[in-house]
Amino acid sequence: MKFTRFKKQNEALVLQGIVTDDGIQQIEGDIFSDWEHTNLVHNVEEIELLAPILPRHVIGIGANYVGKPDDLPSELPDIPVFFYKPISSVIGSGKPIIIPAKIEEVKFESELAVVIGKRTCNISEEEVTDSIFGYTIANDVTAPQFFHEAGHWMIGKSFDTFTPLGPYIETELNPDKIKVEAYLNGDKKQDSETALMIFSMRKMIAYLSSVMTLEAGDVILTGSPLGAEMMKDGDEIICEIAGIGELRNSVKQG
Amino acid sequence: MKFTRFKKQNEALVLQGIVTDDGIQQIEGDIFSDWEHTNLVHNVEEIELLAPILPRHVIGIGANYVGKPDDLPSELPDIPVFFYKPISSVIGSGKPIIIPAKIEEVKFESELAVVIGKRTCNISEEEVTDSIFGYTIANDVTAPQFFHEAGHWMIGKSFDTFTPLGPYIETELNPDKIKVEAYLNGDKKQDSETALMIFSMRKMIAYLSSVMTLEAGDVILTGSPLGAEMMKDGDEIICEIAGIGELRNSVKQG
Repeated sequence: MKFTRFKKQNEALVLQGIVTDDGIQQIEGDIFSDWEHTNLVHNVEEIELLAPILPRHVIGIGANYVGKPDDLPSELPDIPVFFYKPISSVIGSGKPIIIPAKIEEVKFESELAVVIGKRTCNISEEEVTDSIFGYTIANDVTAPQFFHEAGHWMIGKSFDTFTPLGPYIETELNPDKIKVEAYLNGDKKQDSETALMIFSMRKMIAYLSSVMTLEAGDVILTGSPLGAEMMKDGDEIICEIAGIGELRNSVKQG
Repeated sequence: MKFTRFKKQNEALVLQGIVTDDGIQQIEGDIFSDWEHTNLVHNVEEIELLAPILPRHVIGIGANYVGKPDDLPSELPDIPVFFYKPISSVIGSGKPIIIPAKIEEVKFESELAVVIGKRTCNISEEEVTDSIFGYTIANDVTAPQFFHEAGHWMIGKSFDTFTPLGPYIETELNPDKIKVEAYLNGDKKQDSETALMIFSMRKMIAYLSSVMTLEAGDVILTGSPLGAEMMKDGDEIICEIAGIGELRNSVKQG
C-alpha cells in the first residue's frame, strides 16, 4: 500500500491518503497505529502532494555504496559515518530545491529511505524488518561548500529544501530487489542495486538501535549510489525506485 | 516565569505547569501560543519532573568558550561547528545518565540552552531576542570514544539519556548576565560567564536562521565552558545557572 500526505488546492489543512486506481483516497488517523478509510477520493491533478511524512528524525549515512560487488569491503568499520538532517529541510515531490544564495550548485543523492514504524531499541539484524513501516525515496541534497574543514557536515546538509522525500511510502516493497536511480535533466546518473551498500540497510538500523531508541516516524536514508553530481539553477532531478515512484524536483537559485 | 513538564506519580500522562511559591501550578494549552492556568497545584515532592520540553530539534555547537576575555578571537570562523542531538536522548532532571555498555566514562558539558518560540528565518543578531521563548540548562553528555576519525560526532552525541534538559524554562532571564556552572560530586568544575562564548548566542541563532527555518520548540545548546571532564558509574553531576535552577543527574553504567 502507498501512503502519502497532501493538501487541497489553496487550503492549508494537511490530509493523509492512500494511492488507489481512482486517485488519492483520503484516510483518517495515525498511519502507524490506527487509521480508517474515508469515502473521499481526490484526483491527483487537483491536489498538492506533500512529503509523505513529516519525520521525527532524518538520519543519513555517508559514502555507503561501492561500484561493484568485488569492491565491497571484507570488514566493516567499527563506527559508521551517520549524520542528521533537520526536519525543516524536508519538502515533497514537485517543490523546488533552493540553492543557497552564496553558492551556485548543490549535489543530488538519490537514496532508499526507510520509515520506522514502532519503538525500536537494541534489535538484531534479523528483527529489523519487523520495525519497518515502509519505504520511500529521498534526495539527500548537499552543499559540500559548507562542510567544516574538521569534518562536520551539519551546515552543508541543513538548508531548507535539502531533503526531498516521496512521493509515497510503500509498505510492500522488497528492499533487497530494487535499484536506486537518479536522472539529471533526463540523463541517468545513478543506477545501483541495494546489494552494493557497504552497511546493509538492516545492519545500519540494528547498529542505530544499539545507540538510540528509534520511534515511529524516524526516517533513515541508506546512502547514495556512486554517480551523484552537482545541480544548478534550472535543472530537474528525478530520483526513482521502481515500486515506489519518482521523486521529481526542480532546482532554483536562491 | 518558569515552565516545566511533569507526571503525577505512577501515571503516564504528561502534564505542563509553571513554578509558583505553592508548587507546580498545572496549565493547559500550547506554551508558545495560547495557554491557561488551572486551579490544580502539585507539590514538587509528589510529582515526577520531566524535561521541560520535548524539543523539535536539539542543535549544539562545538568548542565555543575561551578561558578568559583576552583569548576571544578577533575574527570568527566562516562555518561554525554545529551538530544535532536526537530528541530520543533527552531526559529530565533527576533521571540517570546511562554510560553505554562498552565504555566506562562519558563527558559532561554544562550549557545554556535557548528555546525558540516562533518561526525564525533569516534574522539579524538584533532580532534574535524576539524569537526566543526562554532559557533552560542542558548537559551535552558526550562519548568521545564514539567520534568517527574523520570528524563526525553523531554516534558519540546520540546515546539515550545523553541530553539532560531542565529543570525549567525561564522566560525572564538576561542571558548576558549569567554564569554557566557544573559540579561533579560537589566539586565545581565549570564556571564561566556567557561573555566568554566565541560565537555569541545571538550570532549563533542569526547564523542558523540563515541556513534553516527554526520553529517553536527548537532548542539550541550554546556550548560548554572550559572544565568539562569525564564521569563514571556512581557520580552525580549538577549543571547550574542561577535564575534557572539545578539540572541534577546521577550516572550509571549501562
